[in-house]
Amino acid sequence: MRSIVNKKAVVLVSGGLDSAVTLYAAKRDGYECHCLAFDYGQRHRVELEMAKKIAASAGSNLEIVKLSLPWGGSSLLDTNDSIPTLRSPAAIKNSGIPSTYVPARNTIFLSIAASYAEAIDASAIFIGAHSEDSSGYPDCRKNYLESFDRVLKTGTKRGLEGRLVLKFPLIGMGKRDIISLGVSMGVPFQYTWSCYAGGDRPCGECDSCILRGKGFKEAWIEDPAWMTKCTR
Amino acid sequence: MRSIVNKKAVVLVSGGLDSAVTLYAAKRDGYECHCLAFDYGQRHRVELEMAKKIAASAGSNLEIVKLSLPWGGSSLLDTNDSIPTLRSPAAIKNSGIPSTYVPARNTIFLSIAASYAEAIDASAIFIGAHSEDSSGYPDCRKNYLESFDRVLKTGTKRGLEGRLVLKFPLIGMGKRDIISLGVSMGVPFQYTWSCYAGGDRPCGECDSCILRGKGFKEAWIEDPAWMTKCTR
Repeated sequence: MRSIVNKKAVVLVSGGLDSAVTLYAAKRDGYECHCLAFDYGQRHRVELEMAKKIAASAGSNLEIVKLSLPWGGSSLLDTNDSIPTLRSPAAIKNSGIPSTYVPARNTIFLSIAASYAEAIDASAIFIGAHSEDSSGYPDCRKNYLESFDRVLKTGTKRGLEGRLVLKFPLIGMGKRDIISLGVSMGVPFQYTWSCYAGGDRPCGECDSCILRGKGFKEAWIEDPAWMTKCTR
Repeated sequence: MRSIVNKKAVVLVSGGLDSAVTLYAAKRDGYECHCLAFDYGQRHRVELEMAKKIAASAGSNLEIVKLSLPWGGSSLLDTNDSIPTLRSPAAIKNSGIPSTYVPARNTIFLSIAASYAEAIDASAIFIGAHSEDSSGYPDCRKNYLESFDRVLKTGTKRGLEGRLVLKFPLIGMGKRDIISLGVSMGVPFQYTWSCYAGGDRPCGECDSCILRGKGFKEAWIEDPAWMTKCTR
């Protein structure tokens, strides 16, 4: 007789495409998913609305943690900075790390996820990071994620007991393959938002819109976010 | 001619003894220190008042970040749980990790310190963790701290550039030696608080009071926290 193990996971959701696919992948793998999102001073609220919708679509609960850091350091947070677009390619590739990099963001998110995981006895934390999407974000790379997994294994009670690991199932994948995987699992992509701007529709010009558009085009799939008006 | 490098450091201060000595050690090593403390739902406010005093005594500024995590998981946060004392030794040593362990606390603090360090171009983060004090906290051990240093080196912009490291100068030291070091650097120990309870004076019975008392006794120094009434 096969024993049934109650597997819980904390899944970081951002309202974006990658974390939505990650959530559905965790669910497919048999995890009871507890979603975690952050209200950290991002420029617009569409992301959080989408996070709520995607968690609900997967039958998962969602905790939103409010974080107020008194320092900025990113064009995604500092409203005086402009977001890099096609019209300002220099801003995108300046020094290899884009101006949209939020200092230590994933480390903060993962550390709070670790706390949540310990509190609810979860055995895994899922993050949808992958190299292609990152455009040079250091905290989306495999060696960083492996380092953080080591932090879990050495610095948390459950990790020390061999009962908490970090999972990053998309890490080696490109946008096209992530979209195809999402379609195969029934991810409702209309409930995802990638644009750095917060209009009624994606701007189509920022770094993130460009990567998303390219992914859908290469997967030969129409992007439902372009077909439905945002219903904030 | 010797070049003068402007060295900035973020120093985690808790209002306790260890972080006070760490702050003074960082200052002794030539760092311009920027202190960081957290208002994370701890049972009492004495710690934060002491953090303000110790930072001011060292001529450093202090940022206090408010963190509100909707889950508990520690007797230091959940007011329904009792704090382990001499009268309940089982609670202290239960499963090797005490009930006062706050899930992933140091990881959360260090990740926010990393963000702050990037924002102000600091080259080091100081934490006063050491094994003896930890009573079994996994996130005070050397291999954990080395893992987090690796997270800085792989997952932050400054770390990737070789310009941000984690420093834990007290790691191999016992309480007695930490106190002696503090005395040699003029640390005003009356501005430090170790007790888990929040009365006008330390309770003298909790795990933390016992370790502190033992340290002062072994260093043949009178603890000034016992001589001055708390001036909240």
